[in-house]
Amino acid sequence: MNNTIIFGHQNPDTDSICSAIAYSTLKNKLGHQCEPIRLGLINPETQFVLDYFAVKAPRLLHHVSKEAENAILVDHNEPQQSAIDINEIRIVEVIDHHRISNFESKEPLYFRIEPVGCTATILNKLYKENQIEIDKKTAGLMVSAIISDTLLFKSPTCTKEDIDAAHELSKIAEVSLEKYGLDMLKSGANLKDKTVEEIISMDAKEFQMGTSTVEIAQVNVVDTSEILPYKDNLEQTILSEIKEKNLDLFVLIVTDILTNNSLILALGEKQKKVEQAFHITLTQNLATLKGVVSRKKQVVPPLTHVFQE
Amino acid sequence: MNNTIIFGHQNPDTDSICSAIAYSTLKNKLGHQCEPIRLGLINPETQFVLDYFAVKAPRLLHHVSKEAENAILVDHNEPQQSAIDINEIRIVEVIDHHRISNFESKEPLYFRIEPVGCTATILNKLYKENQIEIDKKTAGLMVSAIISDTLLFKSPTCTKEDIDAAHELSKIAEVSLEKYGLDMLKSGANLKDKTVEEIISMDAKEFQMGTSTVEIAQVNVVDTSEILPYKDNLEQTILSEIKEKNLDLFVLIVTDILTNNSLILALGEKQKKVEQAFHITLTQNLATLKGVVSRKKQVVPPLTHVFQE
Repeated sequence: MNNTIIFGHQNPDTDSICSAIAYSTLKNKLGHQCEPIRLGLINPETQFVLDYFAVKAPRLLHHVSKEAENAILVDHNEPQQSAIDINEIRIVEVIDHHRISNFESKEPLYFRIEPVGCTATILNKLYKENQIEIDKKTAGLMVSAIISDTLLFKSPTCTKEDIDAAHELSKIAEVSLEKYGLDMLKSGANLKDKTVEEIISMDAKEFQMGTSTVEIAQVNVVDTSEILPYKDNLEQTILSEIKEKNLDLFVLIVTDILTNNSLILALGEKQKKVEQAFHITLTQNLATLKGVVSRKKQVVPPLTHVFQE
Repeated sequence: MNNTIIFGHQNPDTDSICSAIAYSTLKNKLGHQCEPIRLGLINPETQFVLDYFAVKAPRLLHHVSKEAENAILVDHNEPQQSAIDINEIRIVEVIDHHRISNFESKEPLYFRIEPVGCTATILNKLYKENQIEIDKKTAGLMVSAIISDTLLFKSPTCTKEDIDAAHELSKIAEVSLEKYGLDMLKSGANLKDKTVEEIISMDAKEFQMGTSTVEIAQVNVVDTSEILPYKDNLEQTILSEIKEKNLDLFVLIVTDILTNNSLILALGEKQKKVEQAFHITLTQNLATLKGVVSRKKQVVPPLTHVFQE
């Protein structure tokens, strides 16, 4: 049994997978016994990254507490986004770049959240603070996580630290940010190979907002109109998801990685909250949000705000 | 109006005062506009430190939200231990070494908790990470905070990092750890100049445990029997405190800084939880806990555990 397992959130994105691997590599070089694992399927973008750098995907687990004594969370801290049995394992570290919510610990731990665009940017600092050199494959995973989370620096969550880290890492990984970055983003921005179930679950996160439970899924495309043929089918699937999980609201964000606008589809009893939060009117449950690409910075805060009023 | 104010918890101890000053100094050297403030009276130990290094006490405030745009919390993260109006100010950073509880943020922030004995030990790393030299007075404040929080390295919360930092800082501050450290601790371990109100409030913290509210105060002495002449008077004052604040339990920890044992006095409806947590029987509300000196590591976790059962 490994001493410590490291994992990102459910429905893992490229940052959750790559940061779990990159942080395990660092911890192991420092003499710890760590294994990266994942809480869900590898999405096409992440598969592109793993294939490119010839790295094996971490083991898939749903229950973690019988697998190791300790857990390290990367890229999330909210328990409802983590493993099912997260309360039954000792969390010794959290490295993240999201808001803090519902996190409780009995004892002090190493908890490092920074307001940057990507977990891998914090890991880049941790490698330096521990004076460990980053190898080529790990640098490749880390730069991919930054490209993914910042949409190649176009997201408002992107900071100077992310850009600087990505440039450093791209040199070690020997990739061109522009060329590799766009190829990687496009590999994930393709609805054709996805079922509607995948579209609404691949990058979905659940949030407590006031007394309501809100699920927000996001998918990247190269043209938001791609989603229209799926609309009826998507709505039916979302409605059964709402019923099954007892959600008050479900928001699907369809982000155009070229224009940086998003189309949102909102369903649920609290649908009106979306209109209040963004000062918009939904037409057939749809609206376009200009310049909105970041769930964390542009969708969660205004929505949380109207739920707390 | 200052852009950012920095403060430790209510009923500030030496770490809360000294870390607020030391972190403000660092932030100001990095070009920010910060002011350290305090949420309560300076205790005798901290006064000894400020006098020794000729440093002015920070300004006393109870309400913070009209004083600055942003807040940085040091040495605490639980809102009930912070300023009364903490929910009305934007928290941009937290530097702490305690458990995480009840902390919520709408947006990502810089949140750094490490399982070390003292906030100043983390600040010592932040100075290095930012490549800023620590001046003599600031080093004096920081080493004092470490001596205070670790009881001169005797607390189980003390780590190798704390000891290494204290040795580095004592050289810059030009003090002998043994001589200065014991003088400093003794200056605060004196009940004679204190009223019973001061004894139970000077270093008191409130905790949510399960559905209960628990207040835990701590005072250092050089002989636990010093407390006995105050017992009746203390109990009366604690009982009115319980009534006024609607507490379920009040625990006073009287710690002998020479033997490293503590006498505890427990009152309140949930008094039995103390007996369960420490496998002891209270006699006239009192019991001795051998080798227990740390509220954070040796008192809060077992108590939290029995309240959650």
